Amino acid sequence: MAGPCSVESREQVREIASGVREMGASILRGGAFKPRSSPYSFQGLGEQGLKFLREAADENGLLVVTEIMDSKQIPMFLELVDILQVGARNCQNFSLLKELGRVDKPVLLKRGLSATIEEWLLAAEYLMVGGNHQVILCERGIRTFEKYTRNTLDLSAIPIVEKLSHLPIVVDPSHGTGRRDKVVPMARAAVAAGADGLLIEVHNAPDKALCDGAQSLLPEQFQKLMEEIRIIATALGRSVTSPVERAAR
Amino acid sequence: MAGPCSVESREQVREIASGVREMGASILRGGAFKPRSSPYSFQGLGEQGLKFLREAADENGLLVVTEIMDSKQIPMFLELVDILQVGARNCQNFSLLKELGRVDKPVLLKRGLSATIEEWLLAAEYLMVGGNHQVILCERGIRTFEKYTRNTLDLSAIPIVEKLSHLPIVVDPSHGTGRRDKVVPMARAAVAAGADGLLIEVHNAPDKALCDGAQSLLPEQFQKLMEEIRIIATALGRSVTSPVERAAR
Amino acid sequence: MAGPCSVESREQVREIASGVREMGASILRGGAFKPRSSPYSFQGLGEQGLKFLREAADENGLLVVTEIMDSKQIPMFLELVDILQVGARNCQNFSLLKELGRVDKPVLLKRGLSATIEEWLLAAEYLMVGGNHQVILCERGIRTFEKYTRNTLDLSAIPIVEKLSHLPIVVDPSHGTGRRDKVVPMARAAVAAGADGLLIEVHNAPDKALCDGAQSLLPEQFQKLMEEIRIIATALGRSVTSPVERAAR
Amino acid sequence: MAGPCSVESREQVREIASGVREMGASILRGGAFKPRSSPYSFQGLGEQGLKFLREAADENGLLVVTEIMDSKQIPMFLELVDILQVGARNCQNFSLLKELGRVDKPVLLKRGLSATIEEWLLAAEYLMVGGNHQVILCERGIRTFEKYTRNTLDLSAIPIVEKLSHLPIVVDPSHGTGRRDKVVPMARAAVAAGADGLLIEVHNAPDKALCDGAQSLLPEQFQKLMEEIRIIATALGRSVTSPVERAAR
Repeated sequence: MAGPCSVESREQVREIASGVREMGASILRGGAFKPRSSPYSFQGLGEQGLKFLREAADENGLLVVTEIMDSKQIPMFLELVDILQVGARNCQNFSLLKELGRVDKPVLLKRGLSATIEEWLLAAEYLMVGGNHQVILCERGIRTFEKYTRNTLDLSAIPIVEKLSHLPIVVDPSHGTGRRDKVVPMARAAVAAGADGLLIEVHNAPDKALCDGAQSLLPEQFQKLMEEIRIIATALGRSVTSPVERAAR
Repeated sequence: MAGPCSVESREQVREIASGVREMGASILRGGAFKPRSSPYSFQGLGEQGLKFLREAADENGLLVVTEIMDSKQIPMFLELVDILQVGARNCQNFSLLKELGRVDKPVLLKRGLSATIEEWLLAAEYLMVGGNHQVILCERGIRTFEKYTRNTLDLSAIPIVEKLSHLPIVVDPSHGTGRRDKVVPMARAAVAAGADGLLIEVHNAPDKALCDGAQSLLPEQFQKLMEEIRIIATALGRSVTSPVERAAR
Repeated sequence: MAGPCSVESREQVREIASGVREMGASILRGGAFKPRSSPYSFQGLGEQGLKFLREAADENGLLVVTEIMDSKQIPMFLELVDILQVGARNCQNFSLLKELGRVDKPVLLKRGLSATIEEWLLAAEYLMVGGNHQVILCERGIRTFEKYTRNTLDLSAIPIVEKLSHLPIVVDPSHGTGRRDKVVPMARAAVAAGADGLLIEVHNAPDKALCDGAQSLLPEQFQKLMEEIRIIATALGRSVTSPVERAAR
Repeated sequence: MAGPCSVESREQVREIASGVREMGASILRGGAFKPRSSPYSFQGLGEQGLKFLREAADENGLLVVTEIMDSKQIPMFLELVDILQVGARNCQNFSLLKELGRVDKPVLLKRGLSATIEEWLLAAEYLMVGGNHQVILCERGIRTFEKYTRNTLDLSAIPIVEKLSHLPIVVDPSHGTGRRDKVVPMARAAVAAGADGLLIEVHNAPDKALCDGAQSLLPEQFQKLMEEIRIIATALGRSVTSPVERAAR
């Protein structure tokens, strides 16, 4: 899964979608509704952004994953989005989870910034108890005292989840590190630890990005990442595949 | 502000309300919609619980503070509740905060389990940018490695908030420690550090409580707490007052 | 216990000693051997610093507490120092603790930056199992994700230690917050929570301090602190006394 | 680097040494002086343990790495040990680091439980400023709120150290996770992230181990680990080599 942090324009998302598709991505990511710490930061393009994502994905044979922030947005997301992402700050927004438990679309549930693995799995239960078993877990870093990285990516969550749950787990090394040059080695490590997928920020002009430019890969870095993870996946007897297919089985 | 963790029955909440009123509380707390980590735990009495709270409060000349979990509940809360509480897990539920920013009632905003003070103040901005300036901040403990307490109550947040913001700050030593015998000393400490109020769990039969019994005070312990904080408040040239009045000024 | 972060000169420590004595301190603190994160930072005056401390304390009828970093320093400390401090970074330096367990002087054991209360009490056991029961515990803040303060002062350690152990517990709000204007409210809170003493950095010219100037009180702020904690101690039925006397009982 | 948590007997260490040598380890690990949280836990065999390690290593053409806890032990370690390990609890024991800075043997410096990467690199400066440049860094997990693992292994430290420092970095997934079945996937991930080596606990009878049995691999699991990391190392254009040789260059 790859794409920009935020959808910024029709052209931007089309250009990135076409690039990442060519390099092997199967799902397009990009924020249209942005949960920013400050109300004075860029909040995303909203519904218009979803439409840009849909169009760019359709042109390139990709699926769309993007964050939903409110149960009122469900009808709009059912129409335009393939995988509904619940962000880290809403990992324990139980009202939203209950509503998404009644939806017939896969949900990607990010781990909360300070959620224990047990709490995260219980949050997934809120989805499943409502009848929606198409749940993908996403490790995206936890909050610690370390200041060099934005978060501390907890890769040990991968073998733990694998043991405690049947759910697929993907990793977001972009938010997990917050630094572009750490994304490739941590993506390799995630695959080596057994991750079922990756969620990667890619931007065609990261220095001009409206959000999180410092952690977005350049397209050529994404290409290198895809090559390296293919080698590791193959070495471990796996191949590059889509988590949607797996969740939907 | 005092009362049970959860509203369990009409009798329970009336008995506790009358007890805490007599000992000096001015606001009744109690959960009707409960954000439990597991979907299989007791989820609260819902609207019926709000009605029990309203009735018990009215009988005793108290105000009601209780947690709202979804913007759809706003009309019900406007009718039955005086102060709308946003729980720690929803501290950065920006959709809910935006909706509450348009409401003409005080909002008590709990600090997220891993929210920095800066993020917490920015979450309060989401309320105020919408026009609602009746915001009360509530420190309730942050998540650390310490296992003896449920959370680590960060009392240094009090002088920091006092310097950075004009908003009143109250402290919840019940969730902040998770242990009944730590509540009284930490409540004293909060007042000594300059807190503008306290949110205390009191239960008439904690061993039978449906939720968080281990951290609820017995009525006689609450009485002792009120006596001790009066002495400290007086020593510091303050008196026991209601945060609502202060927020509403 | 009060004094400068580091002993910088004979005049500096004499002036501060005389000042804090007058305002009610009974023990002089000051670093002669400094555990600095970087080897390129000021490392302290060493033995010369201990002699300055001893002289300034004797002139003012004070005791001396200062940090020991190596068991080879024990003979020097036995001659010049009254209370041997073990710093946070050496809280689990078990070799040093074993040696200090054979010494007939009080030891002040700071909590490690990420020590659980259980580990801290077990570290104290290393002293006591050797025969030295004159142990004073010192809470000085733990490491969390919060960036506004240098550490998060965990005042709940006070009632917990009081329940689990017979040892006295003192609090260091200077290192615990790292910010001068937070020291007074947190000192008040510590006393209200039941602390048996305080360890406070005071400097006559904090802006010129070689170490930790930003967290050192001005003499007039220390005076205010002493007045305020006297009021709170009195309100709680206690009086201002020396932890040495208590530990030595 | 592989071997038991503690040296327990001559036979135990000889048997394990022979086993791990055969499977490809080049350095024998094993604790003779143990930094246990409690003074009442097994403290290690001391000098006798070092002799058992030396003998078992010599019989199998291995080097010895083991923890030094006090500068007084330096002569004994110079005689019997090849790589002197500084444990996590002594990462900022600056007195010990200064003494080891004058030694002509490689030092393996474990990251402190709550040391930032910056503090860890500065601790390494204490060694190098004294003239000892044979420093190997070892990531072994940091302390967080997560309860399922003993620590949170911070693999992002690998690419960060690689960028900020010329020093080799190895990873200890045994202490980093505290759970046997998480060691293999995290070892793979460490190699994929670019680690220069691994420190692995292996025990011939983990259920009877005097220390940390729950995190020790069985010999057959170690064999599998060696096979898997060889594949990943090869995929990344590296080969399995000894950090000593690299540090000594």
